[in-house]
Amino acid sequence: MNPIAPISPKRRSSPKALCQHTLLEFHGCDAEVLSRVRTIRERMLAVVTAANGTIVKPVFHEFSPWGVSGVVVIAESHVTIHTWPEHGYAAVDIFSCSRKLRHAVVRETLRRSLGAQSVTAQRLSRGLVPPGSIAQRRSGKAKAT
Amino acid sequence: MNPIAPISPKRRSSPKALCQHTLLEFHGCDAEVLSRVRTIRERMLAVVTAANGTIVKPVFHEFSPWGVSGVVVIAESHVTIHTWPEHGYAAVDIFSCSRKLRHAVVRETLRRSLGAQSVTAQRLSRGLVPPGSIAQRRSGKAKAT
Repeated sequence: MNPIAPISPKRRSSPKALCQHTLLEFHGCDAEVLSRVRTIRERMLAVVTAANGTIVKPVFHEFSPWGVSGVVVIAESHVTIHTWPEHGYAAVDIFSCSRKLRHAVVRETLRRSLGAQSVTAQRLSRGLVPPGSIAQRRSGKAKAT
Repeated sequence: MNPIAPISPKRRSSPKALCQHTLLEFHGCDAEVLSRVRTIRERMLAVVTAANGTIVKPVFHEFSPWGVSGVVVIAESHVTIHTWPEHGYAAVDIFSCSRKLRHAVVRETLRRSLGAQSVTAQRLSRGLVPPGSIAQRRSGKAKAT
């Protein structure tokens, strides 16, 4: 690993965000789709790929008696989903430190994939730092441990 | 899998949340700690266990030239971390559908583990549904795919 060079801010204007975080609430979804771990896994991986995400490691988990949790670790950070088939509800988070990942594509593709009647989105900026200090663009390694 | 029984709301008062989501911003952290994937992995697993989380699958990913992304899928949902050693910053998310997981323990234990000078927290309620409709408490299976 390279030695860590602390970044000195060059300017003192308004802070910039290291990451963008979108929180999505899908309501009125197809309960059968939300309950099948294989279906959710397939659709999430397709959606992340369509949105220009570089998949590092997907992990999906089935609840008893129903419901699915899924995390897709991507080179740009992560996309997660948690489903409640009995409520027709899914919570999705997109966290990315690269403009390459298209959050709107995740939202719209998943809206169709889950058969959602409504979706609400909240976008948050994470990791506010002085603007002159963002010198490095991170690139993902394929290695996951 | 059991057939999915749609939940009928019994009352029409204020909605209840299916999940709690805490967003944590750690600033002024130890850059060396934030840069080591093994250290971050060990500390995150210890923190999640201390907070009563049931670990299903941890995935950690090292960036080039530095920085770590980690996701711990837990039976209660997930805990994630993304680090920027060059900024002394880490973003942590705790998403849980069980009161068993102690978010404050994650926050305070990680504050010490990362050597953070400051931490800010934002708590969000996710998945608002009518209060009489929350009939099921989900339990995690050990199976992850």
